[in-house]
Amino acid sequence: MSNCLIAQSGGPTSVINASLSGVIDSAIESPNIHTVYGAINGIQGVLNHNIINLTSIFAPSKSKLEVLKTTPSMFLGSCRYKLPDFTEDETEYKLIFDIFERKKIEYFFYIGGNDSMDTVLKLSKYAKIKNKNVKIIGIPKTIDNDLFGTDHTPGFGSAAKFVATTMLEISYDTYIYDIPSVTIVEIMGRNAGWLTASAALARNEYNSSPDLIYLPEVPFSIYDFLSNLKRIQKTKKNIIVAVSEGIKDKDGNYISASENALDDSFGHAKLSGTGKTLEHIVSKSLGCKVRSIELNVLQRSAMHSASLQDINEACEVGNKAVEYAVDGYTGQMVSIIRTSHNPYKYQIDCVDIEKVANKEKLIPTEWIHAENGDITNELIEYISPLTFGQPNIQYKNGLPVYLDIRHLISNN
Amino acid sequence: MSNCLIAQSGGPTSVINASLSGVIDSAIESPNIHTVYGAINGIQGVLNHNIINLTSIFAPSKSKLEVLKTTPSMFLGSCRYKLPDFTEDETEYKLIFDIFERKKIEYFFYIGGNDSMDTVLKLSKYAKIKNKNVKIIGIPKTIDNDLFGTDHTPGFGSAAKFVATTMLEISYDTYIYDIPSVTIVEIMGRNAGWLTASAALARNEYNSSPDLIYLPEVPFSIYDFLSNLKRIQKTKKNIIVAVSEGIKDKDGNYISASENALDDSFGHAKLSGTGKTLEHIVSKSLGCKVRSIELNVLQRSAMHSASLQDINEACEVGNKAVEYAVDGYTGQMVSIIRTSHNPYKYQIDCVDIEKVANKEKLIPTEWIHAENGDITNELIEYISPLTFGQPNIQYKNGLPVYLDIRHLISNN
Repeated sequence: MSNCLIAQSGGPTSVINASLSGVIDSAIESPNIHTVYGAINGIQGVLNHNIINLTSIFAPSKSKLEVLKTTPSMFLGSCRYKLPDFTEDETEYKLIFDIFERKKIEYFFYIGGNDSMDTVLKLSKYAKIKNKNVKIIGIPKTIDNDLFGTDHTPGFGSAAKFVATTMLEISYDTYIYDIPSVTIVEIMGRNAGWLTASAALARNEYNSSPDLIYLPEVPFSIYDFLSNLKRIQKTKKNIIVAVSEGIKDKDGNYISASENALDDSFGHAKLSGTGKTLEHIVSKSLGCKVRSIELNVLQRSAMHSASLQDINEACEVGNKAVEYAVDGYTGQMVSIIRTSHNPYKYQIDCVDIEKVANKEKLIPTEWIHAENGDITNELIEYISPLTFGQPNIQYKNGLPVYLDIRHLISNN
Repeated sequence: MSNCLIAQSGGPTSVINASLSGVIDSAIESPNIHTVYGAINGIQGVLNHNIINLTSIFAPSKSKLEVLKTTPSMFLGSCRYKLPDFTEDETEYKLIFDIFERKKIEYFFYIGGNDSMDTVLKLSKYAKIKNKNVKIIGIPKTIDNDLFGTDHTPGFGSAAKFVATTMLEISYDTYIYDIPSVTIVEIMGRNAGWLTASAALARNEYNSSPDLIYLPEVPFSIYDFLSNLKRIQKTKKNIIVAVSEGIKDKDGNYISASENALDDSFGHAKLSGTGKTLEHIVSKSLGCKVRSIELNVLQRSAMHSASLQDINEACEVGNKAVEYAVDGYTGQMVSIIRTSHNPYKYQIDCVDIEKVANKEKLIPTEWIHAENGDITNELIEYISPLTFGQPNIQYKNGLPVYLDIRHLISNN
């Protein structure tokens, strides 16, 4: 009987450990798998022989898997490391498959985004060419929702929910004083605007904020932005703007790095993010009260407000990865297919990794209003069901109870 | 039979509407009160005759009071307005008491922080001197917890819980890459460090972060700060610092405005908050990965993670305000007395407004470690019980359901 190895890579999401929990649970239960191993810090953990026995941690106390399921961050740590092309340099591939052989690894699961899927692609190609009996399976995760081959990515729903909830709460916070104000909320997603678009879920029959949405998919014009603010100010006192960190002008320059837009006294754009840059521009041009809010890493770590739907799907995707691997699939990424829109229904499938790796799925043009760059109802209906349900978190002394994970990593 | 008037003032907290809900509920039920009025935008709403009938909104559907109890922001809007000394200028006092008389207001409730208690003090003094039969009662609120005369202020527990929860989640987020990092979390509280101290609740047997805490009560030295980072870096890879927005150097200058600490290229401190300023200093001096996170208005508006204890106390303080007023008390602030530390028990009392207005309660010296400015266990035990319990929020389509409040305020 053979063993399996799991690793995590890229940036964290609230639910990437739910996928890990799903893989470990199914792998421990599988009659085809003897021991479940984890590599610390992604593929670099394999290269550095930094591998731990997950069966010995979780098999004796499976309740820990339930806590892992609602623990943010990445239990096994992460890396951002691109393997070289093996036709040019085979060294690391030899090292990796040597470890696989010594540890009797027949199944390798890699949980990550589009860069991590490049690792899955390269390892599975190498295994095929060299006739290695190792099944390589990718498991999707990213708050950015920019992976091809899947309806959406685990991690996106929870981040979308945090953005929308916070946007709603900010909209309540901003109106209280009887003076005009502009609030700029900077949201993650450098090239894909899915998460910025999620701010629109906060709109309801009473709340029209965010009043303006700026996606990275649409070239940003400071002139148009200021005209829009002035137009809205005629009928509304407190304006809220949802803006992607990655907005660019028509020539493709990041607004956060834009010095032309700023005069000398505000010229040090490298100090500022996109929100801060826009804050200075609006402050200078409109003279009203302006505030910028950067939602920052809370978008990917706020497990306390995660989506139950997202947690469950992430876990299920992990379960299915083991099933596919044991069934002999390799070079595949587990994916989610939406089978019904209203009510929302889905099933788990898998997709050839070639169709996913190194690509970036942006918001399709038909989901963006051409005249103002805002988003369509179709896009809101696409995102909304992914945010449903509250996480089953245990609380102790007022705070959520998460699994202790740092003892695995030295010096933390 | 006479009427009552309620207004809110100062900055919002997650639970200031819970106090409002408590006042409205008790006032509607009181046999001594006919109609419950609300002034829009604090005392300015009284001066501008901007007064609405709350009985007509809430008496027919008391379930709305339950939703109001868990709605963030300030239902009646706010102001930051200081009444002049009435011995110098009586005009506004005459206007206010003229409105009181015309509307048959016998009870006036003002929910706010130490500046708002100045309004309570002045109005109650004026009423006494002019022999006006209006009972003036203050109801405490502030995330800063800086009011005298009460064990703690409603609003603080929820903000403390948000800070601690977020600090815990950030500590999970930071360790994943195998490279040294410093994360600086900027927390509200310009002069009082209660909220910054709350970050320490995130520490547990596995998590030692925040590794450093900087309160505004302790003079800040950049030299000591950098030495501390270097010392901790010897044994720990990822360091997290909790810092008050209001830290000052030994001469009383805000660090956020400090240009001496920065060389020319980083000299535009007015662009940056305290966290950003420290980020640049650490980045320049230590050269490792540095990130700053400003928790911003989420600290006072994140009702989704509020403390049930805090919500209930805020509501109860509102209930009791009506009781005290009807019993004839005036020139008082409702207060919370801690009657037992472990288990935490309290009772509601009231305190002469002279003892509260215009004062600021800082963290006592004996709760701060002299050698490193960190906080003692006594302080943690003081804060912890205020954060207990999850709010009973209804969710719809993934998002919390809050009461529609903006239709009251024009142009919003």
